[in-house]
Amino acid sequence: MVGFCIFGAGRMGQLHARTLLDNDKANLRYVYDVIPEAAKELAERSGAQVAPDIRTALASEDVDAVIITTPASSHVELVIEAARAGKAIFTEKPLSEDIETARHAIEEISKAGVITAMGFMKRFEPSHYKLIQAVKSNQIGRVELVVLTNRDIHVTILELVKETHKTAPYTLLRESTVHDFDLARVLLGEEPVEVYVSGSCLVEPEFEPIGEIDAAMTTLRTESGQMCHISNIWRTQYGYDQRIEVFGSKGMLRAENRPETSVMHFREDGILLDRLIPSSEEDWASDDFFMPKYAAAYPHEMNLFVDAVLSGEPPLVTIYDGYRAQMIVEAAVKSLATNQPVQIEKD
Amino acid sequence: MVGFCIFGAGRMGQLHARTLLDNDKANLRYVYDVIPEAAKELAERSGAQVAPDIRTALASEDVDAVIITTPASSHVELVIEAARAGKAIFTEKPLSEDIETARHAIEEISKAGVITAMGFMKRFEPSHYKLIQAVKSNQIGRVELVVLTNRDIHVTILELVKETHKTAPYTLLRESTVHDFDLARVLLGEEPVEVYVSGSCLVEPEFEPIGEIDAAMTTLRTESGQMCHISNIWRTQYGYDQRIEVFGSKGMLRAENRPETSVMHFREDGILLDRLIPSSEEDWASDDFFMPKYAAAYPHEMNLFVDAVLSGEPPLVTIYDGYRAQMIVEAAVKSLATNQPVQIEKD
Amino acid sequence: MVGFCIFGAGRMGQLHARTLLDNDKANLRYVYDVIPEAAKELAERSGAQVAPDIRTALASEDVDAVIITTPASSHVELVIEAARAGKAIFTEKPLSEDIETARHAIEEISKAGVITAMGFMKRFEPSHYKLIQAVKSNQIGRVELVVLTNRDIHVTILELVKETHKTAPYTLLRESTVHDFDLARVLLGEEPVEVYVSGSCLVEPEFEPIGEIDAAMTTLRTESGQMCHISNIWRTQYGYDQRIEVFGSKGMLRAENRPETSVMHFREDGILLDRLIPSSEEDWASDDFFMPKYAAAYPHEMNLFVDAVLSGEPPLVTIYDGYRAQMIVEAAVKSLATNQPVQIEKD
Amino acid sequence: MVGFCIFGAGRMGQLHARTLLDNDKANLRYVYDVIPEAAKELAERSGAQVAPDIRTALASEDVDAVIITTPASSHVELVIEAARAGKAIFTEKPLSEDIETARHAIEEISKAGVITAMGFMKRFEPSHYKLIQAVKSNQIGRVELVVLTNRDIHVTILELVKETHKTAPYTLLRESTVHDFDLARVLLGEEPVEVYVSGSCLVEPEFEPIGEIDAAMTTLRTESGQMCHISNIWRTQYGYDQRIEVFGSKGMLRAENRPETSVMHFREDGILLDRLIPSSEEDWASDDFFMPKYAAAYPHEMNLFVDAVLSGEPPLVTIYDGYRAQMIVEAAVKSLATNQPVQIEKD
Repeated sequence: MVGFCIFGAGRMGQLHARTLLDNDKANLRYVYDVIPEAAKELAERSGAQVAPDIRTALASEDVDAVIITTPASSHVELVIEAARAGKAIFTEKPLSEDIETARHAIEEISKAGVITAMGFMKRFEPSHYKLIQAVKSNQIGRVELVVLTNRDIHVTILELVKETHKTAPYTLLRESTVHDFDLARVLLGEEPVEVYVSGSCLVEPEFEPIGEIDAAMTTLRTESGQMCHISNIWRTQYGYDQRIEVFGSKGMLRAENRPETSVMHFREDGILLDRLIPSSEEDWASDDFFMPKYAAAYPHEMNLFVDAVLSGEPPLVTIYDGYRAQMIVEAAVKSLATNQPVQIEKD
Repeated sequence: MVGFCIFGAGRMGQLHARTLLDNDKANLRYVYDVIPEAAKELAERSGAQVAPDIRTALASEDVDAVIITTPASSHVELVIEAARAGKAIFTEKPLSEDIETARHAIEEISKAGVITAMGFMKRFEPSHYKLIQAVKSNQIGRVELVVLTNRDIHVTILELVKETHKTAPYTLLRESTVHDFDLARVLLGEEPVEVYVSGSCLVEPEFEPIGEIDAAMTTLRTESGQMCHISNIWRTQYGYDQRIEVFGSKGMLRAENRPETSVMHFREDGILLDRLIPSSEEDWASDDFFMPKYAAAYPHEMNLFVDAVLSGEPPLVTIYDGYRAQMIVEAAVKSLATNQPVQIEKD
Repeated sequence: MVGFCIFGAGRMGQLHARTLLDNDKANLRYVYDVIPEAAKELAERSGAQVAPDIRTALASEDVDAVIITTPASSHVELVIEAARAGKAIFTEKPLSEDIETARHAIEEISKAGVITAMGFMKRFEPSHYKLIQAVKSNQIGRVELVVLTNRDIHVTILELVKETHKTAPYTLLRESTVHDFDLARVLLGEEPVEVYVSGSCLVEPEFEPIGEIDAAMTTLRTESGQMCHISNIWRTQYGYDQRIEVFGSKGMLRAENRPETSVMHFREDGILLDRLIPSSEEDWASDDFFMPKYAAAYPHEMNLFVDAVLSGEPPLVTIYDGYRAQMIVEAAVKSLATNQPVQIEKD
Repeated sequence: MVGFCIFGAGRMGQLHARTLLDNDKANLRYVYDVIPEAAKELAERSGAQVAPDIRTALASEDVDAVIITTPASSHVELVIEAARAGKAIFTEKPLSEDIETARHAIEEISKAGVITAMGFMKRFEPSHYKLIQAVKSNQIGRVELVVLTNRDIHVTILELVKETHKTAPYTLLRESTVHDFDLARVLLGEEPVEVYVSGSCLVEPEFEPIGEIDAAMTTLRTESGQMCHISNIWRTQYGYDQRIEVFGSKGMLRAENRPETSVMHFREDGILLDRLIPSSEEDWASDDFFMPKYAAAYPHEMNLFVDAVLSGEPPLVTIYDGYRAQMIVEAAVKSLATNQPVQIEKD
């Protein structure tokens, strides 16, 4: 049985709490949130206690593992505290907002020797997960080319892009492409060493004057010459477009989009398949349009984390993986700014 | 808010209880089961009370609707009692084991004027439901031909078939084809008037000597000449095969099987798609192999029943529909026994 | 090298002549037609001679094989003449218009010991052919269920149906279902012994008063309990619908319809695939709407016939197969007329 | 009626001659080849005359149009001669082996005002052609992203690559990617202004030491920010991989690969679709593995050229298009050599 404390009682905290409730190897002991009411509500619904502060929770012997779903700026500090307290750690991305503190956190985790996991849930969507396992079990031989397609239905963070443009430009790379960098790493099975990004403003007129982008084509290379292409844009007319293609020396694997249902309408002008997940009008228009596609991925990543804590085997995606993805983001941002291929820093 | 009593605390009772818990327009008040411990356990987990007996539950003003998931032999009596008590009724199939008491129950329901629903969950699987709505909204014009494919992974009720063969022969028609008769009725939009069944023993050697069948091809006709074909067998090597095809004067709709994931493996010998739902070995081998395919259908039918009780509008499938499907079973059994097309009795 | 004479210089004769031209194992020597100009034109285009009469052509030592594409009423006589002359015979269907002369022709062929082939081109369409080979090479074990879908875009022979209704009723069974009977025989691998047909007039108002049909659902059975369903109708809104499904003890094979191209249009309302072959407006509206679907089948059947003549091995479909399909038609017509399952006559 | 002269009686010349024979608006008058026997054979089979020399053919009033299928080094000179003679010109690619003479030829064509066409047959494959028409008729709004996949089954020109490496390096870009550059131009609807190529040697060990490549990922940009990704490699295990994806402001169009037949095999381990065109072992292993995929494209491009000559309207792809594609090749080669994005020269 793994005892848990959740830091952050918002949407993601609630979602993970529900998974723990359904998992009989897990026990949610504490909930902490800077808003005490939020913590209280989630604690009550989950049969857990409100932690009066972070320290208390981390000091508790009942707590084996923590889940960090607080705002991004507090992640790295919580990770470091939890590592020092010897707790297993699941944190939502990003690890940190600057690469120096991220590196520091990685060192602390390494010293502490704790099990960690990063909320790159895309790896755990059933089709993606199956594809990754197939690649790892050598079903297509040596991986040579990877093609990732990651296109949102609409821009959800217009204001954020404008606010952070000066301090942290190219939110598209930081928020969207970072997931693809993570997928690329696990699929290539080797670290990318170089990145080239071509970016455009095709969708959002407000981005043009400030030099921001909402579409990008990215090329990654590894030392041995493997290549990866990533296609991003922040608006489609046909739904949430999430595809993986891995080409190897012995075959190819693809995870395709899926229509919401299997209904086919044979008509005079052709055969109409249902539209992509999510098909409901509300989900489509919502800022959370991505949730139905990844509905099974969230419990899956958490249940595998529980297993990892119990077995002591690192899970599919660790905080170190999050750190490496962030390193690629840094190089990608530089590439976009200079229109040059940029070397990705090694450890 | 609809107050509920569940009769029967077994697997289906538990499944419906969970749906009620997640539905904030429903409230599970009582659980009854002939095994008190079963009732107690479900009641506790659901925040409900154990009903000491059926009468008490039906007399309670807190109860607006009942859910009947007891063994088949008790369905009809409970339905009649509940109708007399003025409660809305959801019952698993069958309504009754003989057609006379079924007819009587229909009269009582009609007198009582209560809302009813029947557990023909196949109508509520998302692809099926979408297809039915498309037919009803006239997207393919007048329905002319219906083709239903309903093939189980393996025989799950070998013993039942042998036991009941003399009193109620052709379990395949009673347990499997009855679902297709229900689908045929809603898709044709007209009552079938004639049925012809061709049956064989292709799978289970023990059926041959006693004259039982495990495979059937059935033809239904309506007065206006619409036709429906149904293909059943109790063993596949490729998974649970559930398909609907509706051909109309203006087009065709099909709900196809789905692979478990969208992964495509491009190989030297072709493109391998994932296998049909359910793909896990345990689910595949289980007697409940059908559950993953209909996982979304059970809560869907129950939530729509809650809405029906609140609105007073009859739901998509009523107990009367269950009664009509049973009438077709009676004629189908006679057709198989005589190798003749048989007229289906009218009301 | 196989020397050929073609009887009948119409569309089918021209089509086969072109295949012979492209086949360097074949040589078209003579063309005969009751209209001398037609014979002359085809002969000139093909580097062949006009045969002054049938006898001359059959007497020629240069002629090893004949192709019969004359009107149906003359088929059986030509077949008998050619058999007596010791020539290999390819004839378009039907063998004969009555079953007695058909039987006689079969006897003559048997006596002569010549290689024969029947123009059931549907077996030779590439997907159908591949599926048949897969069944024959035991890829799905024992065949248990067959489902055939054969739906024309529109009624092409309205006048013929009305004219022949009294002497040879149910043209749908004679012209359309006969192809399915042929497919059923090769796929089941066993002779059907019983047939039941349910037929309706759903499309063509002129058929209703005279008792003719334009839609049918047919069930075939073999001695060992295999079953086959056939779905026919003479009008679709979505194109020419030709499907085969074969269910066996070890798996299932299906040959599906194909859109004309592989283009997918991802739209707000779903994914639109191209319409079925044939997609062009002219082909769609034409009485020859079936030609593009079977464009590759015609040369394929003829080239395999050439090989059969050279090797002495009977081809995939012989005149005897045509005779057996006709026997099933006879029983099917009786079944439809009496609304009873009817035994199919043995040899 | 358009009178033709074909220069070059090899495989492509023969293929085009056959198309002309089947086209009743075209008439093949002359064939010329440096090998007189080759010319003679093709001329005889086509009912044409052998041209004693190029000049005679170009001087003939019977010749309205020429088809150039001679070796690449002679293309540009023949184009210039034909333009000066006022003939319409269809030439196989490339226009020229160096960009200066190519530019000169374009000027001569422009002065002469003749109709021209370039043998970029990929535009004319039925799915590609339909997709291009859909883009041009604005079915997906403004084109924003294009993704092209072009992967050969095996390296067919190993020796050529090694021979030409010093004078004309990166044959992959010159022979394969050039087709994609042509598709990109027509799909983007705007000239690419910048190209970045990342290339690797992943397949052919002999390329590594000489710095040659057999795989590339290319990014193109236009002035307005449209982007195009091209994925090339010279070896697959699953067949000839040819895909087009066009993402626009109002939807997406894709032309996918197709299995050879529509047969689906439902098995215990999943659903096996047929392998990609070409599926036969001989075609697969042949250097002409690409022919079956483009079998319909060659007559299509030629028939449209005949129409263009008759109507005076320029065809879908002119020699100018070939020249522009070659300009992109030049920049791509430079990009690969320098690992920098390179500007594409304007006219």
